[in-house]
Amino acid sequence: MNPAEEYLASNRSRFQDELLQFLSIPSVSSEPGNAGDVERAAQWVAERLRAAGMEHIEIMPTGGHPVVYADHLHAEGQPTVLLYGHFDTQPVDPLELWSSPPFEPVIRDGRVYARGACDDKGNMLIPILALEALLKSSGGLPVNVKVLFEGQEEIGSPQLPQFLAAERERFACDYVLSADSGQYSETEPCLGLSCRGLCAVQIDVRGARTDLHSGVYGGAVANPLHVLVGLLASLRDGEGRVTVEGFYDRVVPLTAEERDAIARVPFDEEAYQAQLGVEALAGEAGYSPVERVWARPTLELNGVWGGFQGEGVKTVLPKEAHAKLTCRLVADQDPVEVSSAVVRHVEQWAESRQPLGVRVEARALPGNALPYSVPAEHPANQAAAAVLRELYGREPYLVRGGGSVPVCELFFTHLGVHTIGFGFGLDDEQIHAPDEFFRLSSFERGQTAWVKLLQRVGDQIAN
Amino acid sequence: MNPAEEYLASNRSRFQDELLQFLSIPSVSSEPGNAGDVERAAQWVAERLRAAGMEHIEIMPTGGHPVVYADHLHAEGQPTVLLYGHFDTQPVDPLELWSSPPFEPVIRDGRVYARGACDDKGNMLIPILALEALLKSSGGLPVNVKVLFEGQEEIGSPQLPQFLAAERERFACDYVLSADSGQYSETEPCLGLSCRGLCAVQIDVRGARTDLHSGVYGGAVANPLHVLVGLLASLRDGEGRVTVEGFYDRVVPLTAEERDAIARVPFDEEAYQAQLGVEALAGEAGYSPVERVWARPTLELNGVWGGFQGEGVKTVLPKEAHAKLTCRLVADQDPVEVSSAVVRHVEQWAESRQPLGVRVEARALPGNALPYSVPAEHPANQAAAAVLRELYGREPYLVRGGGSVPVCELFFTHLGVHTIGFGFGLDDEQIHAPDEFFRLSSFERGQTAWVKLLQRVGDQIAN
Repeated sequence: MNPAEEYLASNRSRFQDELLQFLSIPSVSSEPGNAGDVERAAQWVAERLRAAGMEHIEIMPTGGHPVVYADHLHAEGQPTVLLYGHFDTQPVDPLELWSSPPFEPVIRDGRVYARGACDDKGNMLIPILALEALLKSSGGLPVNVKVLFEGQEEIGSPQLPQFLAAERERFACDYVLSADSGQYSETEPCLGLSCRGLCAVQIDVRGARTDLHSGVYGGAVANPLHVLVGLLASLRDGEGRVTVEGFYDRVVPLTAEERDAIARVPFDEEAYQAQLGVEALAGEAGYSPVERVWARPTLELNGVWGGFQGEGVKTVLPKEAHAKLTCRLVADQDPVEVSSAVVRHVEQWAESRQPLGVRVEARALPGNALPYSVPAEHPANQAAAAVLRELYGREPYLVRGGGSVPVCELFFTHLGVHTIGFGFGLDDEQIHAPDEFFRLSSFERGQTAWVKLLQRVGDQIAN
Repeated sequence: MNPAEEYLASNRSRFQDELLQFLSIPSVSSEPGNAGDVERAAQWVAERLRAAGMEHIEIMPTGGHPVVYADHLHAEGQPTVLLYGHFDTQPVDPLELWSSPPFEPVIRDGRVYARGACDDKGNMLIPILALEALLKSSGGLPVNVKVLFEGQEEIGSPQLPQFLAAERERFACDYVLSADSGQYSETEPCLGLSCRGLCAVQIDVRGARTDLHSGVYGGAVANPLHVLVGLLASLRDGEGRVTVEGFYDRVVPLTAEERDAIARVPFDEEAYQAQLGVEALAGEAGYSPVERVWARPTLELNGVWGGFQGEGVKTVLPKEAHAKLTCRLVADQDPVEVSSAVVRHVEQWAESRQPLGVRVEARALPGNALPYSVPAEHPANQAAAAVLRELYGREPYLVRGGGSVPVCELFFTHLGVHTIGFGFGLDDEQIHAPDEFFRLSSFERGQTAWVKLLQRVGDQIAN
């Protein structure tokens, strides 16, 4: 055990108390009434960074919830890493399903229960403690460190893009290490290599000026619902492939190695089906279910509506019908290009079919996200893999995310750097749900892991 | 002018006062709080029939709003006609759009404004006045007459089927003359020959147990919306024909004469489009717009829904998707047969496509109505045509209804007789809407017409 690890061991119980303190601040970013609590959480974080020995601590206004900055830039010749995490939380509803109040953290069976315990206060406190252990035990850090902890992640970080664009200099770094992340299981580590991008399109079909009586007009006047279902049915084929022209053009095919790495990740199809309550999985021909979610683009209808939705029968011929869809994108697809292709598909369908008596419109909706991926061989991934191998005694799975993690794309766009996830949350820890918890074993293992990671990325260049 | 017509002329102003009296009773059948008013209207009608000289007057309980019965059965050897109408009204909402209170009838510019003025109190009072004119001027009636005036038409006559089934004997007749009907315009008469039937089906597609995140699961799990739109797109072809097997099997084709009669009815396609706000009409190939509405069956989606319908974007993979549809039917289609054929189409589609990971279900909904038609050469149609020809100076158009008029089918089913519409409402009289009105000219012409009609149907047999 090196001195920093000894420091961690001898401060275990204080750190745990501090975690409970941090978790007791109801920093729900989506509730206007809790804005003061988000600010209080920022102050707590700033104070904790100061106590850890970090410098140039600043609570930075963003126009929304603040960002906490700090740095320690004395490792000449070493890389500069930016640590990321967030101190805001999800709301607590439905409150009645919590076993104990969400902002009165309690420890039961080696787990701390509270809103934000895992996502992300527990995880983001870990690197602060690692920094303290390194600073207090050796007087310095093996690398240059900056931190960006934000208070608006759970509402989609609305002010962060502008903020980052304006503060490029300050946050310049070699890469980002994100504490807003997790592991595969208590005994199996993982590294995340990619997440999918997003674009969204709305389709509107409009007919007569008003809803019509299906007896008085039915047969003579176009029904927008019939036009819409025909159009929507043209977006995918029977094999689950998207039929929008050019949709797959920029998709970088998975290499044999990547497919092998995906196949190595345990996947219990039966358990997955049972959990979802379906008798079979369905998706694009030629790919495994995991490949379909992690590495293939999709086009999914998120909502379709028009006409009567109540009980019984209403003989209405509706005046309009609507659909919303989103596409999940993989490298190197571009959200603007793909949403434009979907819009063009709709326009061409309408042009070739010429449906009478309706207007068909499609438009991109806001919410674009670029697909994001980081090479497995990125030095920080290599360092993280080595640390995880050492701590878990096995090779980390190389996983991917089906969703979008906008912050990775933000750092890539504004700072030009990759983000490596290094967190210790687990899938069963009820994030965004009642009885969110975090394992104290993860909290402690995470501190050791971060110490080792920072030491190792320092060694990478030094050697 | 015969004595009955003279009687009408000399009682004009009293009849008008009585109409206003009748219209001031707020007999809204859908409002539980107005049930006493519906009862009061029944008493008013019973009293008015007594004053007219009718016999065996009875307010008959139905389990819901009552029926008023009366008869005058002294025309030996003559047919028995049953007069039909209703004394209940639609609700008045939105009240603020009325120019004067809906149950404080006022006369402006030769029109009486009140809820129920046209539909149907004004129209149903007319034959009572004609009966009085005939009875008071000659002491008898040229035919045997029974009346059935009901108080629940505007809520779909829920108790009437059972009531009629139990009272077949009492209501036995040669045919029904319905005062719940109208003319083509102030100068153009018409006779209605048919209305369409109805059946309804709901389709449900269900996938996973809960709504899913389209990032975490999208690609691997069936999306019920995609399955539904594919299924719905299979119900009609590009030419507007229904593709459900057997759908058209029982449809009696229009004869050349019937198509001619329909073509003779004025139809201004441009004005129709302008009124609806559409740039073109759309429908089954090979038929005119009027034929499509009056004499061809349809399958119309009345509602489709699933997933997110709000503002912006929600990346949900919905657990279920639904559709409601109704078919309008023409002779000799059967609602049970057609809804079964639609359900079978859905089942066969699901069987042949085998969509993975979803359950597809279809079921008939209540609300069946048989298509109804009466031959143009029915003796009562002949008599009505002659009266209209005499009063308007031109041949009545032979029109059809695209909607369903359940009471025609009820009389046919339970009494085995046809119903001939003989009313004087016009399309612009705002029925079911604010500022409903009835032309006093129609009120008066109607009285003469009914006197002539009853005399003529008496003559038919006598000669």
